[in-house]
Amino acid sequence: MTVQSIAQSRSDRRRSGGGRRGRGAAQRQVVPTPSYVERKIPYFDFLSQDQVEAILGEADWMLEEKGIEFRDNPDALRRLADAGADVTGCCVRFPDGMARKLAQTCPTVFTQHARNPNRSVKIGGRNQVFASMYGAPFVRDASGERRYGSMADFDQLAKILHRLPHVHHLGHVICEPVDVPVNKRHLDMVYSLMTTSDKPFLGAITEKDRAQDSVNMARILFGAERMERDTVIMGNVNTNSPLMIDKVASEAIEIYCGAGQGIVVVPFILSGAMGPVSTAASVAQAIAEGLACAAYSQIIRSGAPFVLGNFLSSMSLKSGAPTFGMPEPVMSNYAIGQIARHLGLPLRCGGSLSASKLPDAQAAAESADSMHSTALAGANFVLHAAGWLEGGLVMSYEKLVIDADRLGMYARMLGGLATDENGLARSAYEEVAHAGHFLGSAHTMANYETAFYESPLSDSESFEQWREGGEKDMQQRAYEYWNRLVAEYERPPIDPAIDEALRAYTAKKKEALPDQAY
Amino acid sequence: MTVQSIAQSRSDRRRSGGGRRGRGAAQRQVVPTPSYVERKIPYFDFLSQDQVEAILGEADWMLEEKGIEFRDNPDALRRLADAGADVTGCCVRFPDGMARKLAQTCPTVFTQHARNPNRSVKIGGRNQVFASMYGAPFVRDASGERRYGSMADFDQLAKILHRLPHVHHLGHVICEPVDVPVNKRHLDMVYSLMTTSDKPFLGAITEKDRAQDSVNMARILFGAERMERDTVIMGNVNTNSPLMIDKVASEAIEIYCGAGQGIVVVPFILSGAMGPVSTAASVAQAIAEGLACAAYSQIIRSGAPFVLGNFLSSMSLKSGAPTFGMPEPVMSNYAIGQIARHLGLPLRCGGSLSASKLPDAQAAAESADSMHSTALAGANFVLHAAGWLEGGLVMSYEKLVIDADRLGMYARMLGGLATDENGLARSAYEEVAHAGHFLGSAHTMANYETAFYESPLSDSESFEQWREGGEKDMQQRAYEYWNRLVAEYERPPIDPAIDEALRAYTAKKKEALPDQAY
Repeated sequence: MTVQSIAQSRSDRRRSGGGRRGRGAAQRQVVPTPSYVERKIPYFDFLSQDQVEAILGEADWMLEEKGIEFRDNPDALRRLADAGADVTGCCVRFPDGMARKLAQTCPTVFTQHARNPNRSVKIGGRNQVFASMYGAPFVRDASGERRYGSMADFDQLAKILHRLPHVHHLGHVICEPVDVPVNKRHLDMVYSLMTTSDKPFLGAITEKDRAQDSVNMARILFGAERMERDTVIMGNVNTNSPLMIDKVASEAIEIYCGAGQGIVVVPFILSGAMGPVSTAASVAQAIAEGLACAAYSQIIRSGAPFVLGNFLSSMSLKSGAPTFGMPEPVMSNYAIGQIARHLGLPLRCGGSLSASKLPDAQAAAESADSMHSTALAGANFVLHAAGWLEGGLVMSYEKLVIDADRLGMYARMLGGLATDENGLARSAYEEVAHAGHFLGSAHTMANYETAFYESPLSDSESFEQWREGGEKDMQQRAYEYWNRLVAEYERPPIDPAIDEALRAYTAKKKEALPDQAY
Repeated sequence: MTVQSIAQSRSDRRRSGGGRRGRGAAQRQVVPTPSYVERKIPYFDFLSQDQVEAILGEADWMLEEKGIEFRDNPDALRRLADAGADVTGCCVRFPDGMARKLAQTCPTVFTQHARNPNRSVKIGGRNQVFASMYGAPFVRDASGERRYGSMADFDQLAKILHRLPHVHHLGHVICEPVDVPVNKRHLDMVYSLMTTSDKPFLGAITEKDRAQDSVNMARILFGAERMERDTVIMGNVNTNSPLMIDKVASEAIEIYCGAGQGIVVVPFILSGAMGPVSTAASVAQAIAEGLACAAYSQIIRSGAPFVLGNFLSSMSLKSGAPTFGMPEPVMSNYAIGQIARHLGLPLRCGGSLSASKLPDAQAAAESADSMHSTALAGANFVLHAAGWLEGGLVMSYEKLVIDADRLGMYARMLGGLATDENGLARSAYEEVAHAGHFLGSAHTMANYETAFYESPLSDSESFEQWREGGEKDMQQRAYEYWNRLVAEYERPPIDPAIDEALRAYTAKKKEALPDQAY
């Protein structure tokens, strides 16, 4: 008995039981996918306890002795001084573990609510959330050349993201809509995120007013009362490594946390440029910069959701360019995962990262090692989990769906192995003889449909079938797949009054602003 | 100061110091790469202790109650009965943990010696050895179509393997040389392995006389005295899952272990066919089949090197075909790694596996997740670590070098993070200001050449540079790279008398055999 014949007999049973013809495949598609991953497997402690202490000791030295500069934000300096920090010029030193103490009120786990409650995500603890790539000025798809992103691309990509079951979160700048003035872009993007999908999303951070617009629009979508009670929007902001927090970052903390919402702070450290050519040192630096911002977030509002970020890349000796998926950032994921658990802080890591220009073997290998380590490290919020190419300059339509397929594989891996009676399958061994086969066994019939992750994109056909099918590589299959997702897309319903209010808000704001090219 | 300018000033220093022009790059190439990986990072325990016990309990039930069949080998049945097994027909039951007890004399770590002592590898314990793909009837390279392998391919691939620093071991059937009669092939292959490279290798197992020829040729190469003292050759053989050991496997154990050499025994379980559609059950079955063979190997010769294998694949629901790099086999690597450590047995896992037909994104993603888990699982001997395509039917020239590059990344990851004074880089922070850069710092100057893994194939150039360079993808770069390796290949020296004796042995054997097509 072959698998084909099992599927056939199952389909026959269905038909005779009154099911509609051909319903089998459709039924499989509607098996609900959880809106985030709840990790069932143990953590991986990559460092010895001594190493954890050594790295934390350096972070403490940076916080207590070297200090962190908070630039161009006198209010922030005043608040930090009031809370007990030693402020000299714009350099802030946190005496006696002050930063770590303040960070203790950051929730270890919180929910970011989506407008569809089935899409809400838990961030922190054993929960892991996969989000889209963020921030590429260019897009690329297999039908043409690399080009600047547009608002049409943004909307189309949002539709695809809405359809991908293992991408739990939209992020924010799915691609840069370069055809919209830079000071108005955020309004169109936030509106698209809120209406194209009902998954959770991030708001703007590039400028204080843009962050405020994002929070205001969230208030329209969720209502003022929910904004006080629930986290419904977050900002994601970089520090200015080494050891400097600029106004963009400190103000984003103020706007988001001030509104009771969440903030993700990410030191982006290219080791050798914004940090030493040492992974352990760069991790210590990321912890120090992150803890300084965690402390500030809790000064703004005690209990505000804060996510500690890590985005570390190594450098090519040949070109001085950042490299991704290399052993040093892979190790940094494992290391910082362990340290974030030690600190009790939710962690963001980079996801499926690569320096490749195309969704080729380089892109996939680098992305896989990057994402495998991110997943095993226990990263609670994974930005750039799908779509990233060319060191972040390009959002690739094909890579988006290729990565999203692999996210299904990581989700399954984080679910662990079943070792209950059915998992151990004693009955199958009692049924099947030595050197026999299990295809037709009762255990196989009862389990085969859910036993294995079914990839929508990986090809496992015979060479002959594959040749007859046109010898398509992964990129070609991905191109067809995302086009199918777009064609089958249906907009999730939204209250027309809310939609109208969001449109009115963005129209009014856009009218009031001059066009700015950057 | 840019990285380019650092490199320039370094090069200037060299020249003024009397070095030859352009020597820098060549010097970097000759930094010796260790002949195997010594793992410095902790292990990852993927299962709870209860799960380990549950899986081992099932393996014990298979060994003690269900039994393992040893077919077509009455001598083996007699030996097993003499050792205390309960033999009924060809079904062997191992009462009271007998198999586990016998397996206790398997060395937990041993050295497989290469004819070049700098190439010898340690297998077991914290040591991890990466070997070539094994057994493909077809080859593929970017210059043409998929084709049957030939002895010319075999020799050429052996040359490439000899040059790849992170492939420590040649394996045996690098590709099937289909142009040589099947009953003579092993003679040409073993001769090529012994003379094209001086790395360690495996011998033939497909038939008793072929295994014996391999051992005899090793005796010519290493001398009879060393054969008694040292492990210089091993066989790699599959069980006939479920729960059956055929004559090929039991006789290979007899020949290799009987000569004091090593044996690798690998249950190849496609879950749903040769095992239940359950990963935990398939792992238990692999342990049971492996332990039965471990026990037999120690009956043949107590203390003979034995490596427990694992080769588990899941099944596509659509096609019934084996799939690779999917979460279930990835989890099986982690699980069996933990159990092998528990049993104190060296472990073999599959390496860079994929069902893809081309060295594309599918191949790279599946291979990376497969190999990442194999590496972290602590697999001591990784067959198929480089080159594998199309579920094992194809050895790809390009994928061979792409995978080998990624092996360098895994080797580095297994080396862990330096957290000594230089690794923590306090001096760099004392030198560099807030928001400054580390490129020109003394710490960077002292460390940048060795701080990061330098991939020979990954592209991190700017888009413009890449476009000017011809927009090459990973496959194209890999094609150029392996051709360069072949062009630069130099045969390692061998004692002419030994070479002559090996030639005489193969000539005489081939003359005595009729041509067999299979």
